[in-house]
Amino acid sequence: MASIGTVTAQSMHFAEPLALRSGAALRDYTLVYETYGTLNAARSNAVLVCHALNASHHVAGHYADEPAHTGWWDNLVGPGKPLDTDKLFVIGVNNPGSCFGSTGPTSPNPNHPGQAYGADFPVVTVEDWVDAQARLLDRLEITQLAAVLGGSLGGMQALAWTLRHPQRVRHCVAVATAPNLSAENIAFNEVARRAIVTDPDFHGGHYQRHGTLPKRGLRLARMIGHITYLSDDVMNTKFGRALRHGELAFSTQDIEFQIESYLRHQADKFAEYFDANTYLLITRALDYFDPAREAGGDLGRAFAPARHNRFLLVSFSTDWRFAPARSREIVKALVDNRIDVSYAEIDAPHGHDAFLLDDARYHGVLRAYFERVAAEAP
Amino acid sequence: MASIGTVTAQSMHFAEPLALRSGAALRDYTLVYETYGTLNAARSNAVLVCHALNASHHVAGHYADEPAHTGWWDNLVGPGKPLDTDKLFVIGVNNPGSCFGSTGPTSPNPNHPGQAYGADFPVVTVEDWVDAQARLLDRLEITQLAAVLGGSLGGMQALAWTLRHPQRVRHCVAVATAPNLSAENIAFNEVARRAIVTDPDFHGGHYQRHGTLPKRGLRLARMIGHITYLSDDVMNTKFGRALRHGELAFSTQDIEFQIESYLRHQADKFAEYFDANTYLLITRALDYFDPAREAGGDLGRAFAPARHNRFLLVSFSTDWRFAPARSREIVKALVDNRIDVSYAEIDAPHGHDAFLLDDARYHGVLRAYFERVAAEAP
Repeated sequence: MASIGTVTAQSMHFAEPLALRSGAALRDYTLVYETYGTLNAARSNAVLVCHALNASHHVAGHYADEPAHTGWWDNLVGPGKPLDTDKLFVIGVNNPGSCFGSTGPTSPNPNHPGQAYGADFPVVTVEDWVDAQARLLDRLEITQLAAVLGGSLGGMQALAWTLRHPQRVRHCVAVATAPNLSAENIAFNEVARRAIVTDPDFHGGHYQRHGTLPKRGLRLARMIGHITYLSDDVMNTKFGRALRHGELAFSTQDIEFQIESYLRHQADKFAEYFDANTYLLITRALDYFDPAREAGGDLGRAFAPARHNRFLLVSFSTDWRFAPARSREIVKALVDNRIDVSYAEIDAPHGHDAFLLDDARYHGVLRAYFERVAAEAP
Repeated sequence: MASIGTVTAQSMHFAEPLALRSGAALRDYTLVYETYGTLNAARSNAVLVCHALNASHHVAGHYADEPAHTGWWDNLVGPGKPLDTDKLFVIGVNNPGSCFGSTGPTSPNPNHPGQAYGADFPVVTVEDWVDAQARLLDRLEITQLAAVLGGSLGGMQALAWTLRHPQRVRHCVAVATAPNLSAENIAFNEVARRAIVTDPDFHGGHYQRHGTLPKRGLRLARMIGHITYLSDDVMNTKFGRALRHGELAFSTQDIEFQIESYLRHQADKFAEYFDANTYLLITRALDYFDPAREAGGDLGRAFAPARHNRFLLVSFSTDWRFAPARSREIVKALVDNRIDVSYAEIDAPHGHDAFLLDDARYHGVLRAYFERVAAEAP
C-alpha cells in the first residue's frame, strides 16, 4: 500500500448565493477541494469524503512543499488502501465556514469591503454544507456518488446526503457518529464556546479588526475537545499518573503530570492554526444536527427519503462522545424503513479518535464495503 | 425525620504550625466547624464528616439568619436520619485552603501584613487536611472517632484517616470515591485550572491586590466540573435537546438549548462565592491523592496500616467521574489485607452527584451501617 504521493488543492468559486437553513444566505463563496484517483468514463466511481471539526479537504497524500503534512485520512485513502484510489475517485472538500481555504470567517466580507467576515459570517449547518458540496459535484459533472463517507461530524454530513439528495448517492458510510448531540455533548461544546467568547481578545468575534487572537479561549476549547476524543482507558495507558519531572513539585500552576503537558501542547498547537469563529460555527453545526426534529421527533420517519440508499454504520466500543448506542439508534431507524444497512461495532481502545486510526478490524470492514462499492460502479 | 434546625458555626485557632506534605508549613490557622447531636460521656460516639470540593463545615441544619441555606448533607444528618444525631455526635469541619471560614488564600498572610495569602497560600493535600482535623479532635478531646465519613474528595479524606491515624477511627465510610484520579480526571482538573490561571483577572493569583476576581475562569471551571458530576442519562432526562425559546435562533453566542442556560446559571452562581485560588488548591489535592504511590504502587500494601479498621464503600452505577470500578479497587485492596469491608454498588441515574442525593437504597445502606456504628459506641 503506497501513499498517494504528492497532491494539489484546487478551488472553485460559486457566484450564486447559497440559501442557508437559518434563512440567511452566503452571498458567494469558494470551496477548496482535492481529488485522488481517476473518475471513470461513466462518472460513477466518485466517493465524497466529508470532514469533521478539525479537518479539511486535505484527506490524503501531501503537498510538494509540505512533505510532512499528510492528509488526515491518509491511512484509509490511496492505491491499495481500504478506499482504493486505483478503483475509486475520491473527493475531499473543505466546508464553508472553515478556516482551511474555503470561504469562512477569516475571508473578506463582501458587505464590508476591506474587512473580514469575523462574527458576521452566517451560521452554517450540516445541511448547508451538503448543499454546497452538491453544487461542487454539479460543476464536476458527477450526477451520482458511488458513496459518501464521513466520521463524527463528517458522518452526520454523510447521513444528511441521504436525506436531502438521496438520488445523488448510492452508499452512505457513517463512522463514529450520532443522530444528534446529547445534552452532555452540547454541554461540552458550550463550555468550549464560552471559553472563546469570554476571552477578552475575542472582541465579539471581530478580533481581526482589533489585531488580536483569542488564543486563551481556543486553547481551553481544544483541551476540552481532546479529552472527549480519547477514552479513559487509552489516557490511562498513554499517560496514567506519570509525573513530568519524576517527583511532585507541589504547585497549582506548574505542570506536574504528563497528561497536563500533553494537553497544553495540543492546545498551543491548535491555537496557532485554528480560527475561533470557525470553532463556534462548527460546534453549532454539531449542536443543530437533528434530522428527527423535523420529522416530529421520529428518526425512522426522518430516514424515509433514504429508502433506496444503502448504509454502512461503524462505531467503536470505547467512544463515549458518540457511543455505539447512538449508532444503533440510526441502524434501528434504517431497519424500521427496511433500508439495507450493515453495522460494525469495533472493539477498540482509542475512544472517538479510533475513527482516524489504522485499526485492522475497522479498516477490514471498510475495505470489504468499498470493494463492493467499487465493483458496483457501472 | 426532622431537620436538625438552627445550628451555629464555631471556630478554633491553632497557633502551632502545621507541617505540610510539600515540606512547607502553615504558620498558624483557624478551623471553622459545626457539631450536631451530643457527645456521650465516653466521648465515643463522634462521627467526622469530611467535605468535597465545593462544600464546607455546614453539613446540616441552617443558620438563624439564613433559613434557606441548609447544610449540604442535611438529608443525611439529623434526628432520625441515616446519620442519626439522636445517637451520634457529628462534626463538620472546613479544611484549610478553603474559602468558607477556615484559613485559606483569602485570609491575611502573616508573612505579609496587610495582604491576603492569595497565590502564596501553601499547597495542601488530603493528608494535611486529615492532620489538621486530627488536631481539632485533640482539642475536642476525642481520642477515637466512631466513624469518619466522606463522599468524593471527602471519601479520600476518610480513607486517609485509616492510613495516617488508624488507631483514632473505628469505621471508615467512603462514598463515590477513588484510590486516585485517573488521567482523565486530572485532565478535567487541568482544563479548569488553565481557565482560571489564564484569566487576565487572575494576576498570578494575587487578584485581591489588583481589585479583580477571575470570574471568567471560575465560571468555566464550574461548567466543566458540573458536566462531570452528572451522568449523560440524567442530563438527557432533565434537559435533553430542549430549546430555550422553543425555536432555533441560529446564533453561536446566544443560548439555544436549556442545558446551556442551566450551565451558565450554575457558573454565574459559583463565581459569586467561590475563591479561585481555593479551586486550584482543592483540585491539586485531588490530583495528588495516591496512597498506593508511597507503597510502591501497591494499593494493598498501602492499606496495611488499616487492618483494625472497618469499612463501608459505596459507589453509584452511573458515576463516570469515580466509577464503581474505582471503588472496587479499594475493596480489593482491603480484602487482600483481610480487612472487614462492606461494599454497596447503588443503581442510581444521577452520576457522581448521587452521593449528595436522597436515594432510598443508598440511604438505607448508610442507615443500617450507622446503626451498627452507634450500637457499638461504648
